[in-house]
Amino acid sequence: MKHLLLLSAWCVGVCAGAAGQDAKKYPDPAPMTHDMSEFWTPQPKIVTPPDMDNAVVAPPSDAVVLLGLKDNAISEWVNCEEGKPVGWQIENGIMTVKPHSGSIRTKKDFGDFQLHLEWSAPTEIVGESQGRGNSGVFMQGMYEVQILDNYQNETYANGQAGSIYKQTPPLVNACQKPGKWNTYDIIYTAPRFKEDGSLQSHGRITVLHNGVLVQNNTMILGTTEFIGFPRIVAHSKGPIILQDHLNPVRFRNIWIREL
Amino acid sequence: MKHLLLLSAWCVGVCAGAAGQDAKKYPDPAPMTHDMSEFWTPQPKIVTPPDMDNAVVAPPSDAVVLLGLKDNAISEWVNCEEGKPVGWQIENGIMTVKPHSGSIRTKKDFGDFQLHLEWSAPTEIVGESQGRGNSGVFMQGMYEVQILDNYQNETYANGQAGSIYKQTPPLVNACQKPGKWNTYDIIYTAPRFKEDGSLQSHGRITVLHNGVLVQNNTMILGTTEFIGFPRIVAHSKGPIILQDHLNPVRFRNIWIREL
Amino acid sequence: MKHLLLLSAWCVGVCAGAAGQDAKKYPDPAPMTHDMSEFWTPQPKIVTPPDMDNAVVAPPSDAVVLLGLKDNAISEWVNCEEGKPVGWQIENGIMTVKPHSGSIRTKKDFGDFQLHLEWSAPTEIVGESQGRGNSGVFMQGMYEVQILDNYQNETYANGQAGSIYKQTPPLVNACQKPGKWNTYDIIYTAPRFKEDGSLQSHGRITVLHNGVLVQNNTMILGTTEFIGFPRIVAHSKGPIILQDHLNPVRFRNIWIREL
Amino acid sequence: MKHLLLLSAWCVGVCAGAAGQDAKKYPDPAPMTHDMSEFWTPQPKIVTPPDMDNAVVAPPSDAVVLLGLKDNAISEWVNCEEGKPVGWQIENGIMTVKPHSGSIRTKKDFGDFQLHLEWSAPTEIVGESQGRGNSGVFMQGMYEVQILDNYQNETYANGQAGSIYKQTPPLVNACQKPGKWNTYDIIYTAPRFKEDGSLQSHGRITVLHNGVLVQNNTMILGTTEFIGFPRIVAHSKGPIILQDHLNPVRFRNIWIREL
Repeated sequence: MKHLLLLSAWCVGVCAGAAGQDAKKYPDPAPMTHDMSEFWTPQPKIVTPPDMDNAVVAPPSDAVVLLGLKDNAISEWVNCEEGKPVGWQIENGIMTVKPHSGSIRTKKDFGDFQLHLEWSAPTEIVGESQGRGNSGVFMQGMYEVQILDNYQNETYANGQAGSIYKQTPPLVNACQKPGKWNTYDIIYTAPRFKEDGSLQSHGRITVLHNGVLVQNNTMILGTTEFIGFPRIVAHSKGPIILQDHLNPVRFRNIWIREL
Repeated sequence: MKHLLLLSAWCVGVCAGAAGQDAKKYPDPAPMTHDMSEFWTPQPKIVTPPDMDNAVVAPPSDAVVLLGLKDNAISEWVNCEEGKPVGWQIENGIMTVKPHSGSIRTKKDFGDFQLHLEWSAPTEIVGESQGRGNSGVFMQGMYEVQILDNYQNETYANGQAGSIYKQTPPLVNACQKPGKWNTYDIIYTAPRFKEDGSLQSHGRITVLHNGVLVQNNTMILGTTEFIGFPRIVAHSKGPIILQDHLNPVRFRNIWIREL
Repeated sequence: MKHLLLLSAWCVGVCAGAAGQDAKKYPDPAPMTHDMSEFWTPQPKIVTPPDMDNAVVAPPSDAVVLLGLKDNAISEWVNCEEGKPVGWQIENGIMTVKPHSGSIRTKKDFGDFQLHLEWSAPTEIVGESQGRGNSGVFMQGMYEVQILDNYQNETYANGQAGSIYKQTPPLVNACQKPGKWNTYDIIYTAPRFKEDGSLQSHGRITVLHNGVLVQNNTMILGTTEFIGFPRIVAHSKGPIILQDHLNPVRFRNIWIREL
Repeated sequence: MKHLLLLSAWCVGVCAGAAGQDAKKYPDPAPMTHDMSEFWTPQPKIVTPPDMDNAVVAPPSDAVVLLGLKDNAISEWVNCEEGKPVGWQIENGIMTVKPHSGSIRTKKDFGDFQLHLEWSAPTEIVGESQGRGNSGVFMQGMYEVQILDNYQNETYANGQAGSIYKQTPPLVNACQKPGKWNTYDIIYTAPRFKEDGSLQSHGRITVLHNGVLVQNNTMILGTTEFIGFPRIVAHSKGPIILQDHLNPVRFRNIWIREL
C-alpha cells in the first residue's frame, strides 16, 4: 500500500518520456502528506459474506496458474528487488508473507485480465487500522487493490479492503473474520496511452470480494499513491505484485486469464 | 429467447410516449426474419470450467433471496401472464421449468443490481442448437442473457449460453455438461433515459459463467429481439424474468443485491 | 452513403484475420435488403441554423489543410479507385463533385482527429429523399457521416444530414437551404482493437452542424453499411473519404488536426 | 476560480444527505494548501487560433439567449449573492465584469446542454499568471472551465484557459491576444446521482476554444476546488455562473441549448 521503491526502477524504462518536458523550469506542486488523501466518511456498510473456506473453485482450463492448490514451491514469482530471492514461505498451496523479505511479482507481464486470488489475514490480531493484516495486490505493478484485515477494524474508507487504494472505497465491507479465507475476483482493463505518452483511456476494474461486488467497473485515476494525487504514467504490460507490508498474510489459489 | 408476448403488456404503461410521434405518416422498416441476426462466426473458444456442483455459495447478508437453498415453495415469482399461476415445480431448493406453463417474473422490480443464479440443463439430451436446454434470464424484463445447453452443441455465436441474446456472443463457451450446475454472476447497470424518452446512457452488463468472464461490461444495445434490430424503449425498474422455452431447465440458489 | 466498392479493396490488407476462422463451415446470416435498416421515426426536430456563408474561420496554426481557401488544385486527395485521376472540379477554394468520376480520399491516413469541413448542396433542387444533394464524409475510410440536402426534404431519420449513416440520427436537423454553406466540426476517436482483431473500444464521434450539436460523443457501432448490420472490422489509421453519390455537392475549407 | 462562497449556500438544499453519516466520529483529511494541486508540466502546446472578432455566429433558432448581440440590459442573470443587484456593466451586447461587484448566475437552471459564449481579456495587461484576465464559467454552478488571459502568460497547466480548473489542462493553449474575442463552445453532460446521493456517472465536457478542441469528452472528477481534491456532491440542475475574479473581462453572444 505504501508505494514500492522497487517499482520505480521497474518503471523507468517504460515511462521515460511521459514526464520530462521542461521539468526543471517550472515549479513542482507543494509537497503533501499521507493524511491529506485519507477519507474516512462515508464508511462502507458492512456485509456478512458467505463462508469461502470450503468453496475452493479450481482454475478454468485456459487459466495461467500463479499459485496452485498443492504447490510446495514458488515458481511463478520473483522478488521485486532484482537479484534478491523470494523470501515468502509456501506449504501445500498456501503462501505466506515473510515480513521484511520484500514484495513479490509475477515473472510474466499482463495487460487486460481476469484474476482470482484468495487471501487470509493472520488469526492472531496484531495492530489496528492500516497496521493489521495489510498487504495488497497490484495490477500491472502500479494499481493497488487493498488487502487488509478490515473485520471490526476501522480505517479510512479509501484504504479499506477492496479499495482502489487512496482512490475509491469498496461499495461495501465484505471482510471475513481473521483466519478465514477471502476471495478476490478481479476484472481488469488496462489503461491505454497515446504514442506521446498521454492517456488515451483510463484503466477500469471490477472486484468481487467473497462474491460480493465491491468495485463496479471503477475508473482507475492513475497510480495508487500513498502520498499525493494519482499520477498518469505511460506503461505497457506489467506484473502482478503482492505486497510485503510486514504482516504475515496468507495466499492460495491464484490464477489469471488474459483477456 | 423468443420475445415474450406478455412482456409488451408489461411495457405499455412505461414506454408510452417514447415512440409515437407521427408514427402513421412514415414508412416502417421492411420486415426481417430471425435468421438475419444469427451470426455463427467467430465461434467462442471452449473453456472447461471448474465443477460447481458442490461449490454452493450462500447469499451475502444484504441479498434479496429469490430462490432459497431449501425452498419448497415459489414465493418470490409470478407467472408473466397476469392471473395465471406459476406452473414450475420446486423441491428442496430446485425449481424446474414446466414446459408450456409460461415464463415467470419476480414480484419485485429492480434497477441496477448484482444477480447470482444457478441453472442446469436436462441430463437427457433432447434436441439441438437452440432447441436443447434453452431458457433465459431477463434483466428488467427486457434484456436477455441466454441460458442454453451449449456443451458440444453448436449454435450461432450471438445465441450461445452467456450471450446477450442476438447482440454479443460470450467471450468463451464455459458450459458444463448437461445435468451439471452452472453459475451466472451478473453485474447489471440499467440504461438511463431522458425525460423525453430518449436514451441517456446504455445499459451495461458483466457476466461470469462458472466463474469465467463471458461478458465484460458489455453495452446493451437495446431490447434483445428474436427478429430485427435492438429497440430503444424507455422504461423504469423491471422484474427478473426466467423463460419457459419448453425445456425442463432447473434453477437453484438465486439472489440479488440492488446497487 | 451506398457503400464504396473501392473501400473493401483498401480494407483487405488491414482486416485479414479479423474474420476468417471456419468461415466456410458455418451458415451466413440470411441476406437483408437496404430498407430493413431505414428508420423514419422519430424525425429529428428542425432547427434554423445561423448563416455560415460569411463566417469562414481559417484553420488554426497546427491544422493539416486538406482544402485551402484559395486552392485551385486538388493536391491532398486521390481517387479511391487506384490509378484513376481525381475527376472533381476546383476553383478558388471550392471543390465540386463530378458525378460518376468516383469518390476521393486523402493521401494521408488519420487516427483520432478534429475535422472541419464545409459543404453546400446544389442550389437547383433535383431529386428527393436520398437522391437530393447526397454525399458523405468517411472517418478512416469506414464510418460515414451523411451529407445530404435535408432542407424540407424528408428521408429516414438515420440517413439524414449529420447522421452516422444507418446507425444514429442527428439530434436535430440543422440544414441550410440549398446553395448555402454548411459547416461540420467533427471530433473523432478511432475504435481500438486487440491483437486478435477483436474490438477493444468503440469509435466515438461528436458532430456540430452549423455550430449546432447533432452527434454527442456517439458510439460508432461498426461500419456504416447500406445493407445489414454494422460490422466490426479491425483496422489501423485510414483516410478521409468524400463520396461521389452522383450529385454535384460543393466543398470548401477542409482542415484536420490529429489528436 | 477561487471557490464561490455563495455557491455553498445554493448547494445546501440540494446536497444535504450526500455527506453526513457519522461525520463527527471520524477524522477529516489533513488540510491542504492551494499550491498542492497546481501542476505546471507538461505545458500545453501553443496554437495560434483563427481570428474570431468578425466571425460572430448568431444563435440557432432553438437556443435560449443569455446575452443577446444588441442587449443593453442584463435580464437573464442575477448576482450570486442573494438580494444583491448585478453590478456588471453592459452596452451594445458587451457585458463587462465589475470587479468586487460579485459573480453572476443565470436565473434558469440547466442539466445537459450546449453552451456558446465569447469572452475577451482586458487589452491593457495587468498582473501575471492567475492574476491576469481571470474569470471562469461554471457548469451547474459547480464545475469551472477557466477563463484567463493566457496569451504569453505562463501559469500552471491545470489552471490555464480552457482547463477544467485544477483537474484537466487544455489539450492546447489556443488563446487570442488580449483585447481579441475568444469563443467557447461547450458540450456538457451532467453527472448523475443515485437516490442515496452517491455518484452514478461522472459529468463529461467537451470544449472548443476558438474552434480548437481543448477538452475532449473529459470526465469531470468532482467539484473544481481551489484547495484540495475534487468533491462528489449530489445535485440537480444548476445555473451557469460567470465569475468576478477582479479583472474586467468582457463577454458577448452567450446562448445555450438544453440537450
